[in-house]
Amino acid sequence: MKIVVWDSLKPTAQSLLKAARKCRENAYAPYSEYLVGAAVLSENGKIFSGCNVETATFSQTTHAERAAIVAMVVDGEIEIKALACVGIDSGPPCAECRQVIWEFCNGNPDVSIISADADFKDIRIYTVAELYPFPFGPKDLGQ
Amino acid sequence: MKIVVWDSLKPTAQSLLKAARKCRENAYAPYSEYLVGAAVLSENGKIFSGCNVETATFSQTTHAERAAIVAMVVDGEIEIKALACVGIDSGPPCAECRQVIWEFCNGNPDVSIISADADFKDIRIYTVAELYPFPFGPKDLGQ
Amino acid sequence: MKIVVWDSLKPTAQSLLKAARKCRENAYAPYSEYLVGAAVLSENGKIFSGCNVETATFSQTTHAERAAIVAMVVDGEIEIKALACVGIDSGPPCAECRQVIWEFCNGNPDVSIISADADFKDIRIYTVAELYPFPFGPKDLGQ
Amino acid sequence: MKIVVWDSLKPTAQSLLKAARKCRENAYAPYSEYLVGAAVLSENGKIFSGCNVETATFSQTTHAERAAIVAMVVDGEIEIKALACVGIDSGPPCAECRQVIWEFCNGNPDVSIISADADFKDIRIYTVAELYPFPFGPKDLGQ
Repeated sequence: MKIVVWDSLKPTAQSLLKAARKCRENAYAPYSEYLVGAAVLSENGKIFSGCNVETATFSQTTHAERAAIVAMVVDGEIEIKALACVGIDSGPPCAECRQVIWEFCNGNPDVSIISADADFKDIRIYTVAELYPFPFGPKDLGQ
Repeated sequence: MKIVVWDSLKPTAQSLLKAARKCRENAYAPYSEYLVGAAVLSENGKIFSGCNVETATFSQTTHAERAAIVAMVVDGEIEIKALACVGIDSGPPCAECRQVIWEFCNGNPDVSIISADADFKDIRIYTVAELYPFPFGPKDLGQ
Repeated sequence: MKIVVWDSLKPTAQSLLKAARKCRENAYAPYSEYLVGAAVLSENGKIFSGCNVETATFSQTTHAERAAIVAMVVDGEIEIKALACVGIDSGPPCAECRQVIWEFCNGNPDVSIISADADFKDIRIYTVAELYPFPFGPKDLGQ
Repeated sequence: MKIVVWDSLKPTAQSLLKAARKCRENAYAPYSEYLVGAAVLSENGKIFSGCNVETATFSQTTHAERAAIVAMVVDGEIEIKALACVGIDSGPPCAECRQVIWEFCNGNPDVSIISADADFKDIRIYTVAELYPFPFGPKDLGQ
């Protein structure tokens, strides 16, 4: 994990963070009131945004990271190159999202995960391997 | 529930079914091999598509109906007017999806749910109330 | 759906409701504060209890009904004969739970679902078919 | 992570592994055919077992680790001291389960997670911190 500043980020990373922050405005989180936005960079270089979408049952919530990945799959791609998430603080994706992220990393442990607070004052970069060590994924089903 | 034929459908319903069938082509379902596409009509008259997105854990799957709803929320809307789903047969959304659908019906029991097979030979129309009687939703949390 | 009174219930139904209410005391629901208990009657005549178990992510919650069913499966059975749930009011299981309930009904549409408030003042009995019409289940996967 | 042999394990760890392997026999996994058993040691020194419980929708599956934790909560406890899981190989819990495990670790990064194949030929011990670095949990909701 590296702590970085805005100006040191590449344009693509800045675009991802901006897209994540923008989409956060649409978060539907009346139950947790924990607003999150996310964005993924696809293999083809497109950016897809997502926000969290909660339900009254508290058990069918789609987190922002998953929403962004779903948007990518819906558009016909299944591999991410980087993901950014923005919340009230710079916490990285929860473990459940790490599972879904790993599904679409095509086995690449170096995919970048960038997390930031909504003011971009605290920006952190992880590899997916740092966030999901000893992973379980598509190749581990034993099928 | 009504069984209907293609020509009797309104243009909007036809557009929804076509969008659902088109998006089904992008379904990521290597585990179930059960491909589904869906589309929702939002309050503002937009159509949002979705397909199912599975994971190797079998427990973070996003179904097509939820993917379409998530796309709508990501775009800034939280109310659906109709939903269509297309699969190998004309089965309606599973109960889990009915829960998420109900979250975004704004309490309207008459929202239309249209299901069809991929050849549009078997088309059925339900109200959300027919599919989710005695519902639990945002107003029932006791908060 | 029938509204019934306590004294009209068979002993087994009373036992299920008591087990559900008792287990509700162990509900771990710090996020929703919506406490629920449940109990299932298995094919072999055993009663298994459950309560809701939430997580901070709001998306891995196990509801009481599912907890009770999981307890039954863990004990080696996969068919329920009846299910009871007790909450702040007599609301029946959410749609997600209806999906899991149906998985373990062995296709029997007449399985009883009993819901009650914690004072047993408002008791309702449904069949699973009333709660989950046009169901999707094990036989519908097209496999 | 440490690779260990059976004889080097403490009796409690051996009991956990045996309980996990025994419960694996009851796994209901007709869709993935990926059978898993698990067991947790609670704060009060009790052992609770679990197995995976799948559904036809592929999105309400309860994994073995969660089933064991749910059993503990149903019995009135909310803190685990150790967890074991047994599958076709010695893979550790998936990320989703790590999220639920962390919920019930009471913030203790040293909780032991033991994984093994069904023959106990390959046994591994992790701390929960090794499996879930930079975690999101009950204290991170910002509430």
